[in-house]
Amino acid sequence: MKGTQQGTLEFDIAETPVVVAEEAAVQPKPARRATAESLAQKQREISVSEFFSKNRHLLGFDNPQKALLTAVKEAVDNSLDACEEAGILPDLKIQISQLSETRFVMAVEDNGPGIMKQQIPKIFGKLLYGSKFHTMKQSRGQQGIGISAAGMYGQLTSGKPTRIVSKTSKEAPAHYFEVQIDTAKNAPTVGKDQKVPWEANHGTRVEIEMEATYKKGRRSVDDYIEQTALANPHASIRYTNPLGEEIVYQRSAGELPVEPKEIKPHPHGVELGMLHRIIVDSKANSVRLALQREFSRVSDKVAGEILKKSGFAGSTRPRHLTMAEAESLMRAIQQVKIMAPPTACLSPIGEDAILNGMKARIKADFYTATTRPPAVYRGHPFQVEVGLAYGGDMPADEPIELYRVANRAPLQYQQSGCAIFRATLTTDWRKYGLQQPKGSLPIGPAALFVHMASVWVPFTSESKEAIAHYPEIIKEFKLGLQECARRMGSHLRHHRREADELKKRSYIEKFIPHIGIALKEILSLSEKQKDEVVEVLSQTLERTRAS
Amino acid sequence: MKGTQQGTLEFDIAETPVVVAEEAAVQPKPARRATAESLAQKQREISVSEFFSKNRHLLGFDNPQKALLTAVKEAVDNSLDACEEAGILPDLKIQISQLSETRFVMAVEDNGPGIMKQQIPKIFGKLLYGSKFHTMKQSRGQQGIGISAAGMYGQLTSGKPTRIVSKTSKEAPAHYFEVQIDTAKNAPTVGKDQKVPWEANHGTRVEIEMEATYKKGRRSVDDYIEQTALANPHASIRYTNPLGEEIVYQRSAGELPVEPKEIKPHPHGVELGMLHRIIVDSKANSVRLALQREFSRVSDKVAGEILKKSGFAGSTRPRHLTMAEAESLMRAIQQVKIMAPPTACLSPIGEDAILNGMKARIKADFYTATTRPPAVYRGHPFQVEVGLAYGGDMPADEPIELYRVANRAPLQYQQSGCAIFRATLTTDWRKYGLQQPKGSLPIGPAALFVHMASVWVPFTSESKEAIAHYPEIIKEFKLGLQECARRMGSHLRHHRREADELKKRSYIEKFIPHIGIALKEILSLSEKQKDEVVEVLSQTLERTRAS
Repeated sequence: MKGTQQGTLEFDIAETPVVVAEEAAVQPKPARRATAESLAQKQREISVSEFFSKNRHLLGFDNPQKALLTAVKEAVDNSLDACEEAGILPDLKIQISQLSETRFVMAVEDNGPGIMKQQIPKIFGKLLYGSKFHTMKQSRGQQGIGISAAGMYGQLTSGKPTRIVSKTSKEAPAHYFEVQIDTAKNAPTVGKDQKVPWEANHGTRVEIEMEATYKKGRRSVDDYIEQTALANPHASIRYTNPLGEEIVYQRSAGELPVEPKEIKPHPHGVELGMLHRIIVDSKANSVRLALQREFSRVSDKVAGEILKKSGFAGSTRPRHLTMAEAESLMRAIQQVKIMAPPTACLSPIGEDAILNGMKARIKADFYTATTRPPAVYRGHPFQVEVGLAYGGDMPADEPIELYRVANRAPLQYQQSGCAIFRATLTTDWRKYGLQQPKGSLPIGPAALFVHMASVWVPFTSESKEAIAHYPEIIKEFKLGLQECARRMGSHLRHHRREADELKKRSYIEKFIPHIGIALKEILSLSEKQKDEVVEVLSQTLERTRAS
Repeated sequence: MKGTQQGTLEFDIAETPVVVAEEAAVQPKPARRATAESLAQKQREISVSEFFSKNRHLLGFDNPQKALLTAVKEAVDNSLDACEEAGILPDLKIQISQLSETRFVMAVEDNGPGIMKQQIPKIFGKLLYGSKFHTMKQSRGQQGIGISAAGMYGQLTSGKPTRIVSKTSKEAPAHYFEVQIDTAKNAPTVGKDQKVPWEANHGTRVEIEMEATYKKGRRSVDDYIEQTALANPHASIRYTNPLGEEIVYQRSAGELPVEPKEIKPHPHGVELGMLHRIIVDSKANSVRLALQREFSRVSDKVAGEILKKSGFAGSTRPRHLTMAEAESLMRAIQQVKIMAPPTACLSPIGEDAILNGMKARIKADFYTATTRPPAVYRGHPFQVEVGLAYGGDMPADEPIELYRVANRAPLQYQQSGCAIFRATLTTDWRKYGLQQPKGSLPIGPAALFVHMASVWVPFTSESKEAIAHYPEIIKEFKLGLQECARRMGSHLRHHRREADELKKRSYIEKFIPHIGIALKEILSLSEKQKDEVVEVLSQTLERTRAS
């Protein structure tokens, strides 16, 4: 830590005399309550399961109603992801049953590819385990926390294990598991593991018993499933709620969305420490080759430019790259033009599907939708889509409805903490014909549908309820909102002009005959003269109206 | 899973024929893109460091400005906690130095008990490691994430390790460490480990180099340190900002706050799974003794009542407790009256200290503060304190200032997601004399200071910026706010009555002489008669004014 490098601290230890000791000496000496030794004895590792079990609100298990929703959501996300990855049109069955006043079971079953027997315990009984975290492509799940956290919540509140059946092919047997989490170790404990008969060709069914509350209305499971069906027109969902009502959403699209492709990180979104690690871990033969192999949009030419600007040969083995060399590469990367990252990793919903979805859900006079071109934040490609509906039955004197969606999964909580909300709030809706109290959502008969598709949606918490406020993301949301708002604005202006004209015309039709009668009396006109006057007056006024 | 127990699922696997298979058969068969086998190969463990490195915004490292603040905050929290635990009046030195446009070093030094040499790498180089997570008493830190996450951010953006010096007593040597995190393993890598000269008797100094931005104003480090000094009148803080300005906050209280005592969980806040695990893990000789030993407020009599109601003898070894037995205990616990948890685990700031703090910071006409009695959420004791200042220089036409504090640590971000904000919003301030637009903070020349002290503050994210919306907590905030608001209201009413009287008096003084002159002219009164009339009129009006 001595001044060997540029930028050494001025308050280097050996150089700055520390005066705290003297000050401490004149303080009254209270009895020592803890010492470094006694503190050391308390210091220990915290398992990630213990952490999230105590912090369960971070995962969306704050209260019994939300817990039920979150558990269903995590299971549905996994089912849809699995089906799409395997190229299977999803058929989901969701059932919620009430066992007692506060005890429910939720079951989600899919026709996906199934899960290999040996993976089942970890997937359902270990937090931070999964296939999507290290993969750069759009998916609903990304953390490897969701379904095991739902199982942990079930276990904590009901004492019951998560029950799983899975089958990977027609020929393979179905396996039934009962899995619990050992929270102190964040490891699965398998209660039962047996082959069972199951008529499905392939798929997975998960059941979790838990303390919960079931309610209808906003933010309900029913509402969530409806929104999910609309954001996933290729999925067929059969849902039975605790009241025994069966609701079936047939798929309206016969094809799967375009398959998102996995990509490599983009050099412009990578930080120094990450750059260093990626290269050091590379199995390429040289740093030059590692740059091409581990990053997207780095051709041999681009790698050459980076190395030239960095003044570093790049022929050394990647694992020998020093931090100082990484820093020179980093500086060079910022100066080299590199093509934007590939966007095949994204799978937007599409304008038509959004319009169809909104038309199915909302009665309005005017609909519009836009899919923005892909953009990039911190090296992650993302794409924003906005739909807008105006008029119809929607109340004119209430804030607009805002539907938020991330990677085709509806977001239901923490609206005010979400970048979509922020972008909506900071758009000037008065320009487009809606009222908007300061710092509030616009008022008017309108509904917005806002979708972010990305390889990595930066959620504000593990429960994935709101999108973090990255400026690049808010900007894209605003551009999408403005585009739809402009179209609504011109619809409204057009509509108002027509309304104004109608009003004027009705004045003409209403009052001119009376003027005719009055003139007839005052000037003692004949009936014919009066009609002529009315005719002339009407024509004159019509002309001023039309101009 | 066969129907052996009450509440068996109606959709038991063997009983419900699964129809997905047939439906799937009539679907067009798209090419399979992934299989259970190929997915299994991708499934792997995610280290908690990798997770938070990708999700760094969850820890408060979303942008360079906030990152600097968060790093300082985590180091200061640790320093204050350590000093208080050891019964030492804290002397902190905080220094932020700028190395280049985007590169800073933050250093925080305390006179605390120091850290045992062997603990240093893990404390600074491993996430989820610490002494406070498993302890039920009030402290700033609780997760074992903060300082190691700050170091990880530094390492990612600057490539530099966290530098630590620590000394545990006058006689012991000071140890200097350079620590990095191996994020793939969530384990520390020690770069340097050597003895160094340090004049301090005991204490710890941590330095982190990082990409950052320094700004003054709201949510700045300067602002945070000022608020910290005010919420911690027993701490002395010397702060040097990157501009070289030294700001010294002398302690205004010569004594440490009351030491919070560690408590056991309360039976009413524990869920089934937790109850089962606590008892099974107990080293007591029987379940009856385990209940008394592992929970607070369970005397032998209370344990007896619980066991009687549960119909369970309780003489068995704790480790043999079945889940069914735990369930019967759980039901019994809900029916037994148990004293509220002890509150010695809490250390509120106190009304006087809050008033002094507000008076030092805010120029106002009226101050009030209240410390609410302790309350309980999910078995965790907590206590709410509210301070209010009104008038003075504060702007009358802007939303009030809201200072949020949790366990003596100021909260600066995510105001709108915080339970304190929600409680303030849903208090009807118009009743107490402030304007309040619908769904907004009240408008007026006022500032609020709201503190929650608890053994476990339920933050909405790991970055500890906002308190989660537990109804019990919001209720206490509202009661505290209402108490202060009522006092402000009566101050305002009193003030307004006085102002009204003054106004009336000034009318009398202003207009009556003119009326006298007019009457004199109209009625041709003498000067003396006029004075009499003025006197009589004044007296009459004074009487009506006073009544």
